[in-house]
Amino acid sequence: MQPPEAFPAQTPAVAQIFTTVLSHGPLTRSEVAERTALSAAAVTKAVRPLIEAGYLVEDADDAARRALGRPANPVRVDGGRALFIGVKATGNELIGVLTDLCCRIRVARHLPLTDQDPRAVLAAISDLVGELRTEAEGLGVPVLGLGLAVSGDVDRARGVVRYSPFLGWSEVPLAELAGMTCGLPVTVENDVRALTVAEQWFGAGVGLSDFALVTVGAGIGCGLVVHGQVVAGAHGVAGEIGHVAIDPAGPKCRCGNRGCVEAIAADAAVLDRIRETTGADVADTAQAIDLARRGEPGAREAYAAAGEAIGRGIATVANLFGPQRVIISGEGLAAYDLFAEQIRDSFTAYAFGSAAQCDVQTRPLPFEEWARGAAATAIQSFIRSD
Amino acid sequence: MQPPEAFPAQTPAVAQIFTTVLSHGPLTRSEVAERTALSAAAVTKAVRPLIEAGYLVEDADDAARRALGRPANPVRVDGGRALFIGVKATGNELIGVLTDLCCRIRVARHLPLTDQDPRAVLAAISDLVGELRTEAEGLGVPVLGLGLAVSGDVDRARGVVRYSPFLGWSEVPLAELAGMTCGLPVTVENDVRALTVAEQWFGAGVGLSDFALVTVGAGIGCGLVVHGQVVAGAHGVAGEIGHVAIDPAGPKCRCGNRGCVEAIAADAAVLDRIRETTGADVADTAQAIDLARRGEPGAREAYAAAGEAIGRGIATVANLFGPQRVIISGEGLAAYDLFAEQIRDSFTAYAFGSAAQCDVQTRPLPFEEWARGAAATAIQSFIRSD
Repeated sequence: MQPPEAFPAQTPAVAQIFTTVLSHGPLTRSEVAERTALSAAAVTKAVRPLIEAGYLVEDADDAARRALGRPANPVRVDGGRALFIGVKATGNELIGVLTDLCCRIRVARHLPLTDQDPRAVLAAISDLVGELRTEAEGLGVPVLGLGLAVSGDVDRARGVVRYSPFLGWSEVPLAELAGMTCGLPVTVENDVRALTVAEQWFGAGVGLSDFALVTVGAGIGCGLVVHGQVVAGAHGVAGEIGHVAIDPAGPKCRCGNRGCVEAIAADAAVLDRIRETTGADVADTAQAIDLARRGEPGAREAYAAAGEAIGRGIATVANLFGPQRVIISGEGLAAYDLFAEQIRDSFTAYAFGSAAQCDVQTRPLPFEEWARGAAATAIQSFIRSD
Repeated sequence: MQPPEAFPAQTPAVAQIFTTVLSHGPLTRSEVAERTALSAAAVTKAVRPLIEAGYLVEDADDAARRALGRPANPVRVDGGRALFIGVKATGNELIGVLTDLCCRIRVARHLPLTDQDPRAVLAAISDLVGELRTEAEGLGVPVLGLGLAVSGDVDRARGVVRYSPFLGWSEVPLAELAGMTCGLPVTVENDVRALTVAEQWFGAGVGLSDFALVTVGAGIGCGLVVHGQVVAGAHGVAGEIGHVAIDPAGPKCRCGNRGCVEAIAADAAVLDRIRETTGADVADTAQAIDLARRGEPGAREAYAAAGEAIGRGIATVANLFGPQRVIISGEGLAAYDLFAEQIRDSFTAYAFGSAAQCDVQTRPLPFEEWARGAAATAIQSFIRSD
């Protein structure tokens, strides 16, 4: 007999059917068949063990649906059937969330990081996961996976953080280490790609085959979904919108070039520019925003330049792969009123021809969403595992 | 009874199996099963009618293969079973090729275009197709499809040229019109995407899930294959590497911005720059190349700037998509000795982290290859049609 938490009948078709119900449900079996281009028989066969194992539930027959000519008994995912933990590591903090199978956050926790050595970070992850598992025990639901999101170059397949500048790590086999420490299946993913998975399965990317998620804040990142799959890059690098170089006379970037989008639009770059032009002793982004909102021209100009750079970066993405939608998010949106117009104007100016039709949206996401992205990758791994 | 030219049993699996043999054959059935992740039974079932219809042939048992432990009787595509016509339309010329089913060019023809009005171009296409069909009759093989490649914004699904600046066309339903005139199934595709299909199925992209084809010459274009499929763009625009804007102080581009890659590196841009800096009365690219090869500093500098811009464009593509390979091609490669080093150096400088590992290749392709790309799209449509 399989353990109660095992996900039944692991085939690509079953994973596809389950994912479809997860993102679009409730759906009837025939609606699932239509969306997946699988046969009704295949869907019926796949759904049965998923219901038996409690991952899908069949709602009671609904007269309203029948009146609309839709056959009865749609199925949906039982979010409460399993829990997952997602942790995002920044340079000075861990953010952890406990989510259900539908990636709804049940509990969120923050833990300061004082030491970025991999052993210290692992010990902190272990503490945080322990806390969240205690919460899960209270709920009486098993935790079936752990997702870890880290900025930088991450090899998800191997579970290795190849290079993370914020943490100062290189070649850390994080999945293996965390798996030993926490006793859970572990998925390690780049933080922006993890957030992209959450948007693709549960957010503003549901139902889109091609979209981009652009994150603004400490860095300028981009997750790309092309032909329905997240782009990982053959060599581990993809979505580096922050290093689209738009001005050879622009400020120096940490990558060695000049005028990268990140060197103009990341939080630290904006602060540097404001200090330089105004001479003001601005300590952090909150003060910078405050200064700009009070009308200080140098501060306003720095945010305007940031918006212009972000808009050009987005136009470059749109011109190269023509997404249906670009979602702008990240903690940098706190300054949105200071650069929204410039993002829009420079996107429009630099989008080529009908690429300008791309739907550019902003979507403020609380910082816990990064951890939720990590949980989404754990859910994804759970559904697709062998 | 089906007509002799009908492609048997149109299912996605059959198309996938046939395409696999077309790109990678000869292959045994079990090798096909392995590459397509389909069952051996499915492959055997699909192969039989393809052999019966003459599209696949089974080579005689081969002792050498058996000695290597490979089961006998690999199958391969019989290229001579069917012919296709591909036509590329430039602003002043039609280039037409007659290819076999393996996209090998049998005959090539050029026809000057004096009038770019759609009716005049259609009449010229009809003449050229008629000539090539006469050649096909001589070979005694049926022509089963026509591909037309046009630069600009092309909606392949609808068969419409939405906008082509070189031809001065907008919203021309070319597939329908050419279908009526020529009596063949017609595929219309953007020229760079057509060339990308030829590379993906028959060229330097075979076996790669992610690559870019960058074409240099009159324009700077880019075809992208991501997750095994050519990127078309949700709004018809994709691969616009020519409009990656790298220098706000750069020359004006026809798109309205400044410092686009195309405004620095396209043939006309290089000529303009040489005329400007040297005062020389350079009539065409051949003279410009000649001047640069003779060591004229202004001419050398113009080509160096072009190479630098192309390298930066390629780095942007690599940083965003992380392709396995970038193939540089196009008639602009005639000047390759004048800018190869600059392409390489600026790619390396602007590639972010491990994106620099991307394999950047040059592949000089004769101008007929553009027409061959059009034929490749016709073959693709034939295999995938219902």
